[in-house]
Amino acid sequence: MPRYKLTLEYDGGPFVGWQRQENGPSVQEAMENAVAALTGEAALVYGAGRTDAGVHALAMTAHVDIEKDYGANVICNAVNQHLRPAPIAVLRAEEVSDDFHARFSCIRRAYEYRIVNRRAPLTLERGRAWRVTARLDAEAMHGAAQALVGRHDFSTFRSAQCQSKSPVKTLDEISVSRAGEEIVLRVAARSFLHHQVRSITGSLVEVGRGKWRPRDLETALSAKSREACGPVAPPDGLYFLRADYENN
Amino acid sequence: MPRYKLTLEYDGGPFVGWQRQENGPSVQEAMENAVAALTGEAALVYGAGRTDAGVHALAMTAHVDIEKDYGANVICNAVNQHLRPAPIAVLRAEEVSDDFHARFSCIRRAYEYRIVNRRAPLTLERGRAWRVTARLDAEAMHGAAQALVGRHDFSTFRSAQCQSKSPVKTLDEISVSRAGEEIVLRVAARSFLHHQVRSITGSLVEVGRGKWRPRDLETALSAKSREACGPVAPPDGLYFLRADYENN
Repeated sequence: MPRYKLTLEYDGGPFVGWQRQENGPSVQEAMENAVAALTGEAALVYGAGRTDAGVHALAMTAHVDIEKDYGANVICNAVNQHLRPAPIAVLRAEEVSDDFHARFSCIRRAYEYRIVNRRAPLTLERGRAWRVTARLDAEAMHGAAQALVGRHDFSTFRSAQCQSKSPVKTLDEISVSRAGEEIVLRVAARSFLHHQVRSITGSLVEVGRGKWRPRDLETALSAKSREACGPVAPPDGLYFLRADYENN
Repeated sequence: MPRYKLTLEYDGGPFVGWQRQENGPSVQEAMENAVAALTGEAALVYGAGRTDAGVHALAMTAHVDIEKDYGANVICNAVNQHLRPAPIAVLRAEEVSDDFHARFSCIRRAYEYRIVNRRAPLTLERGRAWRVTARLDAEAMHGAAQALVGRHDFSTFRSAQCQSKSPVKTLDEISVSRAGEEIVLRVAARSFLHHQVRSITGSLVEVGRGKWRPRDLETALSAKSREACGPVAPPDGLYFLRADYENN
């Protein structure tokens, strides 16, 4: 039975998140319904990451097994047809071997967080960025963030609902840069704790506005306590950027 | 009575256009209502350009006279408060002399048109760009577009509803460039005919997909006839970029 690797883009706004849930429409459910509408059979779609409600994806990797050999192009176009009008698009589909697993084979995930740093409310970027009105020092944020790189106990930056067995994760890279009024934070790691990126972003904004000194971020990390975390950034500005695999 | 120059950003999606109309909400009406809510008096807001339904603005210039001397900062913040939840934002307000007129003093207007050139449907860019599935040659589009620069009779690229006295306009510059799957067209002129940018964009897409040879665009211009125009591009991808004035 052919297995397909799918690259998905979605606007997380109308969804309760990636994962199928009782309380509203999920990206996973929309994908599984679209595949089922094509094949006439129940489908299971697995994703590289479980994004929260309101979190977007520019290139989420997923996989699905489809009995009939439609070929990758037909899958891509037909699933897109059946997804309408949900704001989810299959950017690419490719046949992969059946030991490929979108979640378990993934060796690195990357996220981006977009802040618009201005007084005026958002219009075109509404739901797609976090507006922060206090003037932020992006260089100070970048500098402070480097203390998080490497293997650490990230309990401070972990939601109470996190289901991960261990709070210890290895952050490969983190950067903060400004272009005009937009500040972009990028992070990459094998895996993340629940709310880790939003917790780190919210804490870095405290550094950026001068409420925390850069070293306060390191102190917060060392505290290994949720109470040391800054305010958690809203989901609107978070984008799942990319999932990497051994043979790609 | 102080006159204020306002710089506005808006998502044109929910509006019938800039201009106040009977058949639905306009940006002008929303602005006038917000100013009136602040001052308690009827307000007239003039814009540099009259964008169509669904057309966006990144920096539209407008002006308004307000009797009480609130000061520019208060105007900016208070009008933004009263605009909620409309997707319009006052980015800047500044006091100007009373011979400044957003429309009549404007010496140059610039627009941008965004195309996403891919098979997959749009998600985050829905309503904010035109998806064209046929592969486009942006260099060919750029080259062909240069024939439009200068003073010409633009009847070919003018809507039947255009109220301009003359079809003769001077196009200062036009460029087409590609960055990944996004193609951006930029144009600047003292003023434009109704649907001129969307008509030019639609015709350039015919060049980009190879249906027109580059010289066919020049032939279409010379025809001075609406029938020689390519399909008009949808409003979704069009952005009012900037209005220039003599003393800024």
